[in-house]
Amino acid sequence: MKLYEFNPFPNPRRVRMFLAEKGINNVEFVQVDVPSGEHRTEEFVKKNPSEVVPVLELDDGTYISESFAISRYFEDAFPEPSLMGSTPKESAVIDMWQRRVEQSLMGCVGTYFHHATEGLGAIELYQNKDWGEKNREMARSGLEQLNKQLTTNKYVAGDKYSIADITALCSIDFALFIKIEKLEDYPNIKRWYEDVSTRPSASA
Amino acid sequence: MKLYEFNPFPNPRRVRMFLAEKGINNVEFVQVDVPSGEHRTEEFVKKNPSEVVPVLELDDGTYISESFAISRYFEDAFPEPSLMGSTPKESAVIDMWQRRVEQSLMGCVGTYFHHATEGLGAIELYQNKDWGEKNREMARSGLEQLNKQLTTNKYVAGDKYSIADITALCSIDFALFIKIEKLEDYPNIKRWYEDVSTRPSASA
Repeated sequence: MKLYEFNPFPNPRRVRMFLAEKGINNVEFVQVDVPSGEHRTEEFVKKNPSEVVPVLELDDGTYISESFAISRYFEDAFPEPSLMGSTPKESAVIDMWQRRVEQSLMGCVGTYFHHATEGLGAIELYQNKDWGEKNREMARSGLEQLNKQLTTNKYVAGDKYSIADITALCSIDFALFIKIEKLEDYPNIKRWYEDVSTRPSASA
Repeated sequence: MKLYEFNPFPNPRRVRMFLAEKGINNVEFVQVDVPSGEHRTEEFVKKNPSEVVPVLELDDGTYISESFAISRYFEDAFPEPSLMGSTPKESAVIDMWQRRVEQSLMGCVGTYFHHATEGLGAIELYQNKDWGEKNREMARSGLEQLNKQLTTNKYVAGDKYSIADITALCSIDFALFIKIEKLEDYPNIKRWYEDVSTRPSASA
């Protein structure tokens, strides 16, 4: 199996962390030079018409894109340790939080970056600064919601580490990297962040 | 179990269709008057701080929001007929297409509606017309991608009906309802649409 990715980006990191937590190490990583526009070449578009990384190539030649769908493949193929829940209720709660974090943090921080800053420079084809700034506000609401959730929960979706923690960590590190937020404003997130950042998967 | 929803909206319909395809009929539907702002009342925000429908209340009082997370609950609790895949590869392909359709159709059509039209009127707190128009363009690309996929596939994610078809049907009916697209421009989608619309679940 091959994972087409661009190492510095937050979404490929979600998949690498998922693989690290599962202890899966037979995936070859292939770098796609997104800042130079390689994701828009004919060759890459055949792999993913949506023109984004990461993309997983299975041994039979099937391409799977979308970080969550790729993770779903590995969750079903290698169920232990479970990162998406073991009972219907647990799976639903994890999925709900994974999506909340994905939309309100990864989505909003990314939209701010691509629309209200220089983003990736010349390869940004459309920018809407006002929408970008609105997303910075929405990201803050998302962080407040998560800070509240972490008052009484050890991890994002409850008492077990899950894919929701992976998505949250990649999103928050992205926000810290572009310097729009600081952990000191969210004490429960800070406590959680210091815990999950020490797991070996965090540096995958 | 109770499903808090607003019948005319496309996202609650996704869950109703999912339940209909599964043959699950022990869920009580409770209407939330979103156009009057009921989703922003203290009582509803306790159920879902994200202030959107649908929300599932389990018999133990747990609230699950996000249409896909609610569907995940029912998929795991009542596995047959499977709507999210039976093998790791099938699950991943279905999830990939479900997300593509959710983002490029449901997401973009909804964003156009909320930002570039009157949307829901007085309850729209922020609008960005240019972003709305951009999403209309993105929805068109999504439809072209789906039309291509349906050239050789009976259903959205391959030869089996799945949750990706449900999300696609709800999204396309939304686009037709607000009159921004017509099926005649997408012959493969038209063929698929006429097929899936005859299933009893389509009128759930």
